[in-house]
Amino acid sequence: MPGAPIDYRSAGVDYQQIDALKVQAQQAARATARHLAGHGVHELERSRGESAYVMEVGGRLLASVTECLGTKALVADATRPISGRTHYDSIAQDTIAMAVNDLLTVGATPLAVQAYWAAGSSEWFADAERMRDLIAGWQAACEQCRVSWGGGETPALNGVVAPERIDLAASCLGVIEPRERLLLGEQLAPGDAIVLFGSSGIHANGVTLARRVAERLAAGYGARLEDGRRFGEALLDPTILYASVMERFWAGGGRAHYCVNITGHGWRKLMRHPQSLTYRISLLPPVPAVLRFLQREAALDDHEAYGSLNMGAGFALFVPPDQAGAALSAARAAQVPAWVAGHVEPGPRRVVIEPLRLSYDAHELELRA
Amino acid sequence: MPGAPIDYRSAGVDYQQIDALKVQAQQAARATARHLAGHGVHELERSRGESAYVMEVGGRLLASVTECLGTKALVADATRPISGRTHYDSIAQDTIAMAVNDLLTVGATPLAVQAYWAAGSSEWFADAERMRDLIAGWQAACEQCRVSWGGGETPALNGVVAPERIDLAASCLGVIEPRERLLLGEQLAPGDAIVLFGSSGIHANGVTLARRVAERLAAGYGARLEDGRRFGEALLDPTILYASVMERFWAGGGRAHYCVNITGHGWRKLMRHPQSLTYRISLLPPVPAVLRFLQREAALDDHEAYGSLNMGAGFALFVPPDQAGAALSAARAAQVPAWVAGHVEPGPRRVVIEPLRLSYDAHELELRA
Repeated sequence: MPGAPIDYRSAGVDYQQIDALKVQAQQAARATARHLAGHGVHELERSRGESAYVMEVGGRLLASVTECLGTKALVADATRPISGRTHYDSIAQDTIAMAVNDLLTVGATPLAVQAYWAAGSSEWFADAERMRDLIAGWQAACEQCRVSWGGGETPALNGVVAPERIDLAASCLGVIEPRERLLLGEQLAPGDAIVLFGSSGIHANGVTLARRVAERLAAGYGARLEDGRRFGEALLDPTILYASVMERFWAGGGRAHYCVNITGHGWRKLMRHPQSLTYRISLLPPVPAVLRFLQREAALDDHEAYGSLNMGAGFALFVPPDQAGAALSAARAAQVPAWVAGHVEPGPRRVVIEPLRLSYDAHELELRA
Repeated sequence: MPGAPIDYRSAGVDYQQIDALKVQAQQAARATARHLAGHGVHELERSRGESAYVMEVGGRLLASVTECLGTKALVADATRPISGRTHYDSIAQDTIAMAVNDLLTVGATPLAVQAYWAAGSSEWFADAERMRDLIAGWQAACEQCRVSWGGGETPALNGVVAPERIDLAASCLGVIEPRERLLLGEQLAPGDAIVLFGSSGIHANGVTLARRVAERLAAGYGARLEDGRRFGEALLDPTILYASVMERFWAGGGRAHYCVNITGHGWRKLMRHPQSLTYRISLLPPVPAVLRFLQREAALDDHEAYGSLNMGAGFALFVPPDQAGAALSAARAAQVPAWVAGHVEPGPRRVVIEPLRLSYDAHELELRA
């Protein structure tokens, strides 16, 4: 159906169905927490539903998370014949970013990463160029986040993973220290500034949509963006690792109230916290060329585009107004663009994007049990 | 080729190729450890190459691991029409066992598990019976190990995971306390007793081979074993969770020198530690009916069978001779069969299985960088 709008549902990703499952599993998961008492450990119950799980072990707050790349490896595989590069160094960084950026949101310093590389067959691992890129990119991303790559699992899963494909995921362990850094959003309050950190492009969310668009373009991933770059290569700009921003912010004595990693659900994620608060955005970051192209080619209106893609903002930090400058400075030092883009105000749980005259109501983001 | 022997290489899993990759990735991983110093943390370098990664954070030893189920979900899917059950409760336990049993080997108490359930499409999650079983089995396995299910990731990966399939994995975080429980094998010495804990069947290794066998049996997974059970259902007996054995052993003041989770590479894993030591087995545990059937139908000789399957022993504990009784008692209390099956002696790195008159030399298990 060339020319018809593409949304997530028609592209095969039904978030409502998946969200319902998540809620069901979350309830079963909650019931297991009582076992920790037998080990002299307890969980921070309020971390359930946040982007990383937090436990207190011997007076120390530990955070853990497991995340996957999604389907971006398919874009790398399809772009390789066009660009002559495997792009697995880039998607290695994306995979680590999915885990590390989530871990950062609870105020944690990431310490160690485990790799999960599940290939469709053992032959997958025989492509030396691709393997070299994957390993080098994984290592470089760990270096950039100053985490230790602690090991991992590299199975060949014939029949489970599609032939010639790989399922890339990462788990990350971190520590929240001092414990005042813990961010579960309880201090989130009217008046807080919303600081947005720039994205490099699509990051790793919205990729299914991008693949559908590529399928109906005559030039596919070889199509040219306004800036002359090819669609596939631009999609493969790696996700920004926000660890260097956040570590600078904390090291400078910064104080924050909440963090959000803007991934699936796009800017709807700004109302991730369950409190009744309105998030008013008055300034829009520039939209990366690849996302402008994607929005146009998929015929998404702004409500759909900002509700599913990062549209130039990969990470949001909610801070007391006097900390906004510190957040901008930390980002500048890490060479990541940042903006004080809005503020929190009393009102129903809702995201209002004033420059676009649109808003998302509470029912448009329901992630919790 | 009905009747021809099936080994791992012809079944599409080339361990040598994967092992070479593991070594390459291990070297890159090692290089990242230096970053921990900047966080006031350090790794236990000797844990690299073991089954879980160990870091010291504020005087406390933390262990972490990520492991996957492998291809056993394919067996569940194929057996469901025969048995009328989804078996996802069983394979949920298998998945957790893959992570938890590995974590135990370094002397850790497992604390928290993250779920990784990557489906081939969002529709996968719409099968309510299967989902209910998966969630219930996951929860029950967490209860049995007394760990908290801290959350997880449930993506739909169209094009990466095969249609109608799911890639199940788990990561696990634990603590080694008191630190004297740390098991990196440095005390492993001649004279140590080798205690084997029984398996329930195939566990989750050797499944690719089992699938090939099912393909060439007229009745497939419906074929009857000697004990009258069907092949598919017997394959789906869940992996034993050894946490309850090990926690009892430690709680009773037990002292150990090393642990091995007997998974891929079967009994060759007994020489997992790099020291030059010979592991002499003088007693064989009974072989579960499903493994006897598999060995016969795949026409594996004993060298191949014990070198790739658990053959009735799922976990090995290496203890000073005066601790063997405590290990047996702990297993008995947890209702897991156990045997003092052999001992460690001076000599080249080698596994000798006396009752079968066979041995594995050092070059038959090379996992390390």
